[in-house]
Amino acid sequence: MNRKALSELTLAVGLVGPGAVGKALLEQLRVAIPKLEREGISLEVRSILNSQQMLLAKNTPSIDLSNWDDEVIQKGTDPSLGVLTEHLKASETPHRLIVDCTASSLIPKFYPKWMEQGIHVVTPNKKLNSGPYPAWRAVKTLQAAGAAHYMYEGTVGAGLPIISTLKTLLDTGDDILRIEGVLSGTLSYIFNTMKPGDRFSEVVWSAKRRGYTEPDAREDLSGTDVTRKIITLARECGAELELSDVPTESLVPEPLRNLEDGGDLMTELAKFDDEWAARLREVDDAGEVLRYVGSYDAESGVCQVGPRRFSKSHPFAGLTSTENIVSFTTSRYCNPSLIVRGPGAGPAITAAGVFGDIITLARYMGAHS
Amino acid sequence: MNRKALSELTLAVGLVGPGAVGKALLEQLRVAIPKLEREGISLEVRSILNSQQMLLAKNTPSIDLSNWDDEVIQKGTDPSLGVLTEHLKASETPHRLIVDCTASSLIPKFYPKWMEQGIHVVTPNKKLNSGPYPAWRAVKTLQAAGAAHYMYEGTVGAGLPIISTLKTLLDTGDDILRIEGVLSGTLSYIFNTMKPGDRFSEVVWSAKRRGYTEPDAREDLSGTDVTRKIITLARECGAELELSDVPTESLVPEPLRNLEDGGDLMTELAKFDDEWAARLREVDDAGEVLRYVGSYDAESGVCQVGPRRFSKSHPFAGLTSTENIVSFTTSRYCNPSLIVRGPGAGPAITAAGVFGDIITLARYMGAHS
Repeated sequence: MNRKALSELTLAVGLVGPGAVGKALLEQLRVAIPKLEREGISLEVRSILNSQQMLLAKNTPSIDLSNWDDEVIQKGTDPSLGVLTEHLKASETPHRLIVDCTASSLIPKFYPKWMEQGIHVVTPNKKLNSGPYPAWRAVKTLQAAGAAHYMYEGTVGAGLPIISTLKTLLDTGDDILRIEGVLSGTLSYIFNTMKPGDRFSEVVWSAKRRGYTEPDAREDLSGTDVTRKIITLARECGAELELSDVPTESLVPEPLRNLEDGGDLMTELAKFDDEWAARLREVDDAGEVLRYVGSYDAESGVCQVGPRRFSKSHPFAGLTSTENIVSFTTSRYCNPSLIVRGPGAGPAITAAGVFGDIITLARYMGAHS
Repeated sequence: MNRKALSELTLAVGLVGPGAVGKALLEQLRVAIPKLEREGISLEVRSILNSQQMLLAKNTPSIDLSNWDDEVIQKGTDPSLGVLTEHLKASETPHRLIVDCTASSLIPKFYPKWMEQGIHVVTPNKKLNSGPYPAWRAVKTLQAAGAAHYMYEGTVGAGLPIISTLKTLLDTGDDILRIEGVLSGTLSYIFNTMKPGDRFSEVVWSAKRRGYTEPDAREDLSGTDVTRKIITLARECGAELELSDVPTESLVPEPLRNLEDGGDLMTELAKFDDEWAARLREVDDAGEVLRYVGSYDAESGVCQVGPRRFSKSHPFAGLTSTENIVSFTTSRYCNPSLIVRGPGAGPAITAAGVFGDIITLARYMGAHS
């Protein structure tokens, strides 16, 4: 009755997109690989592909992870997803996965092709889960039919156990009633920091200075990232939603949405400081706080994204820093709900979310626990 | 490259201990089995054993879960773990598991024998994980060697994702620095409820009236249950600890520990109300609250259990009802930490923790995700 012998469990990995998250993942793998070997899991990084170049492991089972960056420059060839796929398939291990660490909408179009060939997909890329519903449905159908696993813990709350928690609730027959969450580190920081009397534009500026925003802060302020995450969770629960179905309150004032240069944003935003000050004063007078929240109501099937008021004793009111929080209200977890909270953005913890999926995948393939 | 065909994945289950949690689990299974069948997971409950009787599925693959209670009474035979094991092994499926829903210290002695035969063990029973270290070590060694899986999400925080979260942190190479938690629903209620001016004995009485305590409330007040849980988490991190190594502040006053009748407890406890009132007043004057906490410090390797003071803005201060909370402080999740919070006791959610493990096990055996 013993399961696979230790030496058998090898996963061949192709990484697409060695940006901030991809780099952090490769570094985590480099450090962890010796320990995983002792536990019977052998991880071979067979290829790394960025938009300019591709590196393939040829004479060794794995690319040397202490040196891949130099090697990409010296030995990299033209990037080709086709060549990457064939190179993975040529590996002797039956277990192959592609890790998509890009933010591209293009790469997810390849997931079905990979999965049809039995190649598993692990990704923190939000584009498939929150893109056109039919494409998402196609991948989930392949997954349910057992073609390959598709894993994406890193898409919501980085490494926080949010997708896995939701899946377990659903798998064990709990009824999801409501999911609510502060799902953007940037917007969490802004609302956790901003006190009555503060100037909105200055708080946004402080988030930018700390490196919490995208180069153009409007990407964060628009709320779209939150909408993508709440859609991911809602679809997991069975909702057939498109991005355009979700009313999203953008924090970018109408006149600034088409500003050519995001650099002007801060000075322009200052013009709206008084509006925010009044809003915040009113909320504070009522003994409440504002938090930028994505929510899904299972009964109505409706998602909503925007600032909402919470009493000061609500779990969302106590957040600090760039913390994410997700509250699952279910038949079993009803008043109080089940809550996961903690840092939910940044390369290292997003990479850890991806890495966690890779380990789970290894267990699905027969690794010991 | 396709994985196992749908029809192949059958798990044969033997349940030991159909008490409150075991009953809730059987009911959850009964409801979920049709949906799981559609997903390619077939769960066959082959045997149910309590301390008096045993029911075996003989002419059908599974015991009828809508009627097992009556059948135990009508058709039950003498309980025998040996017969139960042989009956499971006689099943045609290669995947067999025993679910131990007892609180017994005896049943865990059989885990190694079962695992050596390739029978997986799933349990919310805390006795192995917090009992003598060598017995725990033996089971973990078998597990690491791939004999069988041993899963126990339900041992800490019932269905809350605490064990799985800790395992993922460890698997992905994070360093655990500190784990702290409010791990007893009963003690959570008592400290969340008790305000300066309240009488300790009356708050304990109100917990008892609501059904939150064991029949003899001293079992909760002693803190041993919390010690068992923090040891479970500490051992997962590599600490070699025995129950007796953990300083545990019992809330049962010395003179009451040997009272014959737990029923006298409430009147006797009242004699200590003034002491508690003074303690609480002092804590409140400092702007703090008391919470009954188990903690593990990885650097020193020390666990401690007892009431501790927290500022009113600390995440532990905001708890309500019987909520559990666990905070993982790690290299990656450091200030703020990673927090899981929610109801952490009760038959239905403990059963859901066990059920979640069974689903995970099915995935480890090749079920689709």
